[in-house]
Amino acid sequence: MKKTHQLISGLSALALAAGAFLLFPSLALSDDADQALIAKANALFKPLPASSALENSQLTPVRVSLGKALFYETRVSSDGRLGCVTCHNPAYHGADSLALTLGVHGKQLPRNAHTVFNTSLLISQHYGGNRATVEEQAYKAVLSPLAYGNTSNEQVETKLTQLGYLPLFKAAYPADEKPVSVENWSKAIGAFERTLLTPAPFDKFLKGDAQALSRPAKLGLDKFINTGCVGCHSGVTVGGQSYQKFGITQDYWLVTGSTPKDAFKGYDKGRFHDTKDEADAFIFKVPQLRNVAVTPPYFHDGSVATLPQAVRVMAQLQLGKQLSDEDVSHIVSFLESLTGDIPADFANVPGLPVAPH
Amino acid sequence: MKKTHQLISGLSALALAAGAFLLFPSLALSDDADQALIAKANALFKPLPASSALENSQLTPVRVSLGKALFYETRVSSDGRLGCVTCHNPAYHGADSLALTLGVHGKQLPRNAHTVFNTSLLISQHYGGNRATVEEQAYKAVLSPLAYGNTSNEQVETKLTQLGYLPLFKAAYPADEKPVSVENWSKAIGAFERTLLTPAPFDKFLKGDAQALSRPAKLGLDKFINTGCVGCHSGVTVGGQSYQKFGITQDYWLVTGSTPKDAFKGYDKGRFHDTKDEADAFIFKVPQLRNVAVTPPYFHDGSVATLPQAVRVMAQLQLGKQLSDEDVSHIVSFLESLTGDIPADFANVPGLPVAPH
Repeated sequence: MKKTHQLISGLSALALAAGAFLLFPSLALSDDADQALIAKANALFKPLPASSALENSQLTPVRVSLGKALFYETRVSSDGRLGCVTCHNPAYHGADSLALTLGVHGKQLPRNAHTVFNTSLLISQHYGGNRATVEEQAYKAVLSPLAYGNTSNEQVETKLTQLGYLPLFKAAYPADEKPVSVENWSKAIGAFERTLLTPAPFDKFLKGDAQALSRPAKLGLDKFINTGCVGCHSGVTVGGQSYQKFGITQDYWLVTGSTPKDAFKGYDKGRFHDTKDEADAFIFKVPQLRNVAVTPPYFHDGSVATLPQAVRVMAQLQLGKQLSDEDVSHIVSFLESLTGDIPADFANVPGLPVAPH
Repeated sequence: MKKTHQLISGLSALALAAGAFLLFPSLALSDDADQALIAKANALFKPLPASSALENSQLTPVRVSLGKALFYETRVSSDGRLGCVTCHNPAYHGADSLALTLGVHGKQLPRNAHTVFNTSLLISQHYGGNRATVEEQAYKAVLSPLAYGNTSNEQVETKLTQLGYLPLFKAAYPADEKPVSVENWSKAIGAFERTLLTPAPFDKFLKGDAQALSRPAKLGLDKFINTGCVGCHSGVTVGGQSYQKFGITQDYWLVTGSTPKDAFKGYDKGRFHDTKDEADAFIFKVPQLRNVAVTPPYFHDGSVATLPQAVRVMAQLQLGKQLSDEDVSHIVSFLESLTGDIPADFANVPGLPVAPH
């Protein structure tokens, strides 16, 4: 499949390049224009760092390896079927392809699952930003009745011990008196997730390789900046660093087709549901846009299926603008340049411990 | 994790070998005894073949690659969450670690899921043997209300087309007028599954490498043969080639702790539920024993958690014998020599098509 993908992408790029050359030989940006665009982009965005290690918390291979096992481990959930990987699947670029994600025992959750890629670099986790770090997300998920369905730390720790994880926790956290703990579960999974960074063609462009972006992608980048998208979607993760009202020019559901949700007793009002402060009504974390082209559907409730439509909706709802089909197409090309490679080891499912007999 | 596993196994083997040498220097089998055991084993078992291709159906790379994508594809199920991989997970050696497997929308099924490894070589599929081939299993699963939850061939085919699979089916089945079909879904998945063979230390032993089995494993093999286990568990897959009553000396639930199941209006009577013939009461397909040590829990309802207990239960229920702890330990050592390597490419999750916009 990967080879097929690469082949198809390769052929498309070739056809595109040939088409651009044959039809618009004069449309290649000048070297000067390229350099100007690179400079402009560098003022607004940043390439991915090499690592997102926590201060004072080394991502040692033994911790990352344990974290990866725990990420793929489903036997800790109350139905034995849900792990981090269930909502953050390599097959779907670290997300799950569903509009609204599903928890343990098939329970429907009221929001969409983000991709796990680069998420350790964001200001917070979840659409509501109600988890500060990937570690806090992992900690609360394993104890959530909707996610893993466990009811106490002891329950989680007993399961992990019975499954044979004690030697692996000991190796990862040798100084701890009680190595098997939900605290260390969350640290190990956090360590693994902090390795899941996905450098993309756009990073090469930011570092000075003008050829890393196609001409439509460069036009799209320029349009993305000039239209005002960059007002929220900037920085290393092209968003994900701030909170913003969703639906500035009108109620979002009039344009997205969103429906009220039982969990929110009506339309989803974002951070309001956590803070109960009307000032937070309809405020959501601005999503990152890295890998956006390969992680449909879109928005907090997955109400929009395709990227071109998501771009149109955002321009209308947030900026009061109607984009032309050509502008949408160019912006989509730019967004496609944010698609990174799936970290090689992430997609390689580890064999998990067989409970000792 | 894999490295950790190998390390742990390596150390155990070393300790075992050293222990055997220090404590029982005279217990090494003689070369003659080794050769006799290899000859005896070759009369009862066979090494894995290089391929399990269907006659007249080539396992071309493009078909196998499509089959792998479809194996990992969950968006075709009615909750968007279930694929072949859900019950046949690389993390659990091609099975799912659950006593009773779960279908779409978390529905509990009444039987345990087998490992997908080497299953194309068996006489039939499922504990009831009610699927002739892996292809028939894949065909019926995608249309089963309990498994994928689809209600018609058209529904499956429409989903596959909308997800962008048409070019991949065309490439795999270029001569077909209608490439996207449930028929070709089943053929492609079958092609992939036919590649999932797991050669194990026991295969090396059968081919003449006396050192491929530890001394306890050789003693266990001899005990396995002489106790009568081999009466059913023989051939290339060490079982899986015949049907047999489960519970010859007494009702199985008296020993396994099995409970009645609603789906069967009582205890599971095996093939009887398909044929309604009392002669088939309690007749099940004899499971293969390849990878048995790494695919707990055991039996058609996963009622027994550990391999030593499963060995004891079988000796008592099928042969009316009480095995000593030492015999059980040796037989378990032999069964561990049936654990094969996870096929490398199997564990590497493919990126799946993103629906075209």
